[in-house]
Amino acid sequence: MSGLDAAGREVRRAGEAARVAALTLATATRGAKDVALLAMADRLERDSARILAANTADLSSTTASGTPEAMLDRLRLDSTRVAAMAEGLRDLSRLADPVGELVRGSRLANGLELRQVRVPLGVVAIVYEARPNVTSDAAGLCLKSGNAVILRGSSSAASSNAAIVASLRAAVEEAGLPADAIQLLTDPSRASVRALQRARGLVDALIPRGGADLIRSVVENASVPVIETGIGNCHVYVDRAADLDAAVPIVVNAKTSRPSVCNAAESLLVHADVAHRFLPAVLDALAGAGVTLHADERALAAARRHAIAAQPATDADWDTEFLSLDLAVRVVDSLDEALHHIRTHGSGHTEAVLTDSEATAQRFVAEVDAAVVIVNASTRFTDGGEFGFGAEIGVSTQKLHARGPMGLPELTSTKYVVTGSGQTRG
Amino acid sequence: MSGLDAAGREVRRAGEAARVAALTLATATRGAKDVALLAMADRLERDSARILAANTADLSSTTASGTPEAMLDRLRLDSTRVAAMAEGLRDLSRLADPVGELVRGSRLANGLELRQVRVPLGVVAIVYEARPNVTSDAAGLCLKSGNAVILRGSSSAASSNAAIVASLRAAVEEAGLPADAIQLLTDPSRASVRALQRARGLVDALIPRGGADLIRSVVENASVPVIETGIGNCHVYVDRAADLDAAVPIVVNAKTSRPSVCNAAESLLVHADVAHRFLPAVLDALAGAGVTLHADERALAAARRHAIAAQPATDADWDTEFLSLDLAVRVVDSLDEALHHIRTHGSGHTEAVLTDSEATAQRFVAEVDAAVVIVNASTRFTDGGEFGFGAEIGVSTQKLHARGPMGLPELTSTKYVVTGSGQTRG
Repeated sequence: MSGLDAAGREVRRAGEAARVAALTLATATRGAKDVALLAMADRLERDSARILAANTADLSSTTASGTPEAMLDRLRLDSTRVAAMAEGLRDLSRLADPVGELVRGSRLANGLELRQVRVPLGVVAIVYEARPNVTSDAAGLCLKSGNAVILRGSSSAASSNAAIVASLRAAVEEAGLPADAIQLLTDPSRASVRALQRARGLVDALIPRGGADLIRSVVENASVPVIETGIGNCHVYVDRAADLDAAVPIVVNAKTSRPSVCNAAESLLVHADVAHRFLPAVLDALAGAGVTLHADERALAAARRHAIAAQPATDADWDTEFLSLDLAVRVVDSLDEALHHIRTHGSGHTEAVLTDSEATAQRFVAEVDAAVVIVNASTRFTDGGEFGFGAEIGVSTQKLHARGPMGLPELTSTKYVVTGSGQTRG
Repeated sequence: MSGLDAAGREVRRAGEAARVAALTLATATRGAKDVALLAMADRLERDSARILAANTADLSSTTASGTPEAMLDRLRLDSTRVAAMAEGLRDLSRLADPVGELVRGSRLANGLELRQVRVPLGVVAIVYEARPNVTSDAAGLCLKSGNAVILRGSSSAASSNAAIVASLRAAVEEAGLPADAIQLLTDPSRASVRALQRARGLVDALIPRGGADLIRSVVENASVPVIETGIGNCHVYVDRAADLDAAVPIVVNAKTSRPSVCNAAESLLVHADVAHRFLPAVLDALAGAGVTLHADERALAAARRHAIAAQPATDADWDTEFLSLDLAVRVVDSLDEALHHIRTHGSGHTEAVLTDSEATAQRFVAEVDAAVVIVNASTRFTDGGEFGFGAEIGVSTQKLHARGPMGLPELTSTKYVVTGSGQTRG
């Protein structure tokens, strides 16, 4: 209880300071914000030694607790990674300012001028896991979009995050904007997340980035507005009319190019009419790339016929976001069965169809209910950078506000401005 | 507990039926939806006698329980009102279909075609109070935007709503679309609202329309996505540079043209430099229109000097959405004080400034954080119809997804469609 109170007090303090800073940021010019972003980049590089020392401290306490190497790698910084963080901030300075953008405008019959313009959300809170580069990415994205930010990183990265935020705040202040635009919570417990998710009036949007449990808990319990991100149980459906030669590298890319991310494929659905030709080739390629195959009865039989290692799929496999070199494989008898499978097991992130049939592509696109539907390409393209947005705060899997990769405009709201000359309503 | 279970079962049944219907609606053509809207309109008129009989039954049980006349008036239907409901549905048939609209499109460097298109939300649930016309309005808006709808009206309108929904469902079915696209909950208790707000997977968006308590409770407790509507503690700020002659009718219109709605003004702020000239005129006009004035010390003194009835404002008055012929009046010493007052007490709905100073107008527009900011016109213009949207499901006072009057596009989400020719990600 005292843990919750301390966390609650810290969230309130951070939220109130952020709220004041947000007033200044909301009307800051693009020029002022870009100067701050460049100063943040320079300062990160100048403070690199201090940041790396803090990161070393995080790494040693985490190593001591027996953390797996994959997680250590995400936590680890070196001078190249710090330079990449700085470069990310410089990239942001080159993007257009979403604030002030005219979304629509018209003159009404009674002479009123109606304009809908983009405005910052205000205070954005982001809860995320180990990678310290998210700290500078998120701070930069929020600053560029005119928002103050409350960052709640993982305790394993506490020293790294504190060092990064100290540099960023100093740079923002040097550049003439309020340092309080960037807030870092230090309470390491879940109590700080609980306090954030109930901080109505202080937090305008809460973005949980991380594991499925974290996101589910935030969505279930938040009273502040939430943008749900990132759970990706993505499917590739290989249709009877697919170009099977082209399909093999697409499936391998979707599964293996970076298995730990949300746009990696987790299930492969193959039309029965082409299974006998396609499965040997694709399963062999996947197994050769180190993929553990979780196969339904027919796919398992095909694997065994060709002496490819595979294990029987369990019911749970169809709903699992493996985030690893594992893939569930199922043979379906029709497009309808594939659509039904995706409707039942998909997480609404990214779904791909491989087909040369225009009719099949059209039905898949129309009937699959997901943030991104892909025809004849890898699921891995669901990404703000790949989409040409220049930056990404995450991939929304909800339907309200933003759906799919979120760039700078998705960190804004809008405001209607009505200008009259004395009009009253009849 | 058994109440909650019954309500929960009804919500589950309605949600599952709506989910199935939503699949058909999502791919229905504009033509099919417009035919259904016209059939719904015709059927309402044809069934008018049955609907009015049901309404009479609602009115008599409500009259028996001693309900105030204003509320009875909102509940009451007559043939003119039924005809207006039908006409509203016909109007919807003439509006463009938001579904399928291309929001953005581009061809990426690697040849991928990227399109962001509008898609229905899926299942929309709406909780509302006495007025039975909301039943057909909401059903029509949701059908036109390709959504299935779950309606939860007030128990005082239960017979009217049941009669209206029976007609609408019959018409939808006649027109070849699924009747289950329109669901009416019959459980009269709050338990049905509680079940709706936790119906994850069944409800894609929940829109509470009604009193502040209902909205607050839904927002605090919902795990499904919510669109907050309608609490309007709206201010009119009369600046030192205002055209005082034009200001009087604007203030009177903002307060008195329809005091029970959310875009009516609830507080008047007057710059001290013009208070001695403006207050006598405006307070006299307001009092003459039957407004009870809740005045701060300086405004009260001005009223008394001119023998205008007024009462001292209480602290609570500044935060009250009166929804009646009551107005809080305060004299402020500067634009900054007005902005601070609005920041402290406003509900983020509609705020108006009356001024001939461009600099003041610009600062007000930039610094007031509200869905709609109005310069030199009445707050009453915050309305989907007035804005030219052709229809309105409510006024959102939240920042995510939709802010301000919501028309058909605000009842949609988007989907990214990526079309390739075998691309994989490097």
